Amino acid sequence: MNLQDYLSEKCRIIDVALAEYLPPEDRFPDVIFRAMRYGVLNGGKRLRPALTLAACEAVGGDPKVALPAACAVELIHAFSLIHDDLPALDNDDFRRGKPTSHKVFGEAIAILAGDSLLALAFETVTKRTEGVPSEVVLEVTRRIASAAGVGGMVAGQVVDMISEGKEIRPETLEFIHRNKTGSLIEASVIAGGMLGGGTPEQIKALALYGQKVGLAFQIADDILDIEGEQEKTGKTIGSDFRKQKATYPSLYGLEKSGELARQAADEAIAALRDFDERADPLRELAHFIVAREA
Amino acid sequence: MNLQDYLSEKCRIIDVALAEYLPPEDRFPDVIFRAMRYGVLNGGKRLRPALTLAACEAVGGDPKVALPAACAVELIHAFSLIHDDLPALDNDDFRRGKPTSHKVFGEAIAILAGDSLLALAFETVTKRTEGVPSEVVLEVTRRIASAAGVGGMVAGQVVDMISEGKEIRPETLEFIHRNKTGSLIEASVIAGGMLGGGTPEQIKALALYGQKVGLAFQIADDILDIEGEQEKTGKTIGSDFRKQKATYPSLYGLEKSGELARQAADEAIAALRDFDERADPLRELAHFIVAREA
Repeated sequence: MNLQDYLSEKCRIIDVALAEYLPPEDRFPDVIFRAMRYGVLNGGKRLRPALTLAACEAVGGDPKVALPAACAVELIHAFSLIHDDLPALDNDDFRRGKPTSHKVFGEAIAILAGDSLLALAFETVTKRTEGVPSEVVLEVTRRIASAAGVGGMVAGQVVDMISEGKEIRPETLEFIHRNKTGSLIEASVIAGGMLGGGTPEQIKALALYGQKVGLAFQIADDILDIEGEQEKTGKTIGSDFRKQKATYPSLYGLEKSGELARQAADEAIAALRDFDERADPLRELAHFIVAREA
Repeated sequence: MNLQDYLSEKCRIIDVALAEYLPPEDRFPDVIFRAMRYGVLNGGKRLRPALTLAACEAVGGDPKVALPAACAVELIHAFSLIHDDLPALDNDDFRRGKPTSHKVFGEAIAILAGDSLLALAFETVTKRTEGVPSEVVLEVTRRIASAAGVGGMVAGQVVDMISEGKEIRPETLEFIHRNKTGSLIEASVIAGGMLGGGTPEQIKALALYGQKVGLAFQIADDILDIEGEQEKTGKTIGSDFRKQKATYPSLYGLEKSGELARQAADEAIAALRDFDERADPLRELAHFIVAREA
């Protein structure tokens, strides 16, 4: 299989769905709809929703049934970026090479656009998912909600924030990454597996895959923050480093961090040992996440 | 029936459930859990969740099955207050006589606490609702999500904000209130009716009741902002007026506003004409909302 073709195809499907699920810009009050669309339709890599669709296929499901959940996960990712970029939080002016939401729309609208995207995520998955038993949709919604809040993403962001400028322990760094990035990636994978009709054993294996891929992704991201060029990441170079953010390279050095990322990717792939070739996109994705340049 | 006794009893049940559903404060990172509990466990009137429980009883349901949804609605209400009070939005320092979240915990934690409460609302209703078919829980979740976001609360807040200091038309004022306050109140009532096993006709009547009660509540709130004493509302007196916020009294005057509130309450009660005495708490609540002093 060719992963680039696979990802391009999924990315196209996801972008079409997101553009459809987001309210149109010409509705009153248009500023909030423009801000929501600006925060989502921005050429993102759509890694999380691609994982949802790939996990659905890995258990033999039709990826169509997982599309609303996949988009829900991306909406939550977009919400978290808008809020994390706010002046009171990371105070970032650029994201993917474009001015951040509060730079374009002001802080108030940026806060409200984030809120709306979070609410829209739950509306989308509960309203648009079809052809799956209600109890499965309910469980998927619950998993996504748990990952988005204080049982996941928010907890990670809080610890990331209160750790700035402090010397931190490896356990703290792991807590940050497992929660801030890992939990939503894990939920993305689990959601796809559940909606695709996976067995409990398959869901368990996919959860482990998600955890390991999430970790690999975060370490690779930390490395890119130092090594990458601004054109590629769209962020100010070394911005984490400048803010004295806790990162893998700052704790372990670049070389060891690269090893840890590859090890996590290998463990992710090992978790899929009982899956057939329909899990190949998930396997390739694990490699890709570590090898990517932006 | 005695409404005060009824409300005290419901309020007690709701407060116990909220305290149980919110994560404990002694968990790491404790600051976010303290902020979440501070924003919710604050002696609020619990009007919305009381409406959910009362609507459940009005259709003959056991209010226990509606308790998680009732709490979800209150969590969303608390989220919206925290975010609305932020410096970038209404910039309020006091709420119910206590310093607002960002005054106590700082802006970053206040933003994240709001986010967490919104996510926790969806986790709570999807995880804790028992004894109701999954498709009903799913529909309730969808209604609540729609009311919380840009199809409701957020849209109202946006228009409220962009209308500050401007002369506004009655249609705009109605849009603000129908969305900012009305939609979540309506969803609270509908959720209770659905979880209690109401028929489609009953849900339709409850929706109309919710719309009218929401309107009555908002007009009464506008009047209290001008007439009330600070000890009663806990807000700075006339703070809406000072910010040149669009209100009913500013558009219609105090006397006419009082009439409009009573009329809305009467219409709410009329919507319940086919309900038996089990809807009496809802009827009494409609009167109470207009007559309350804080």
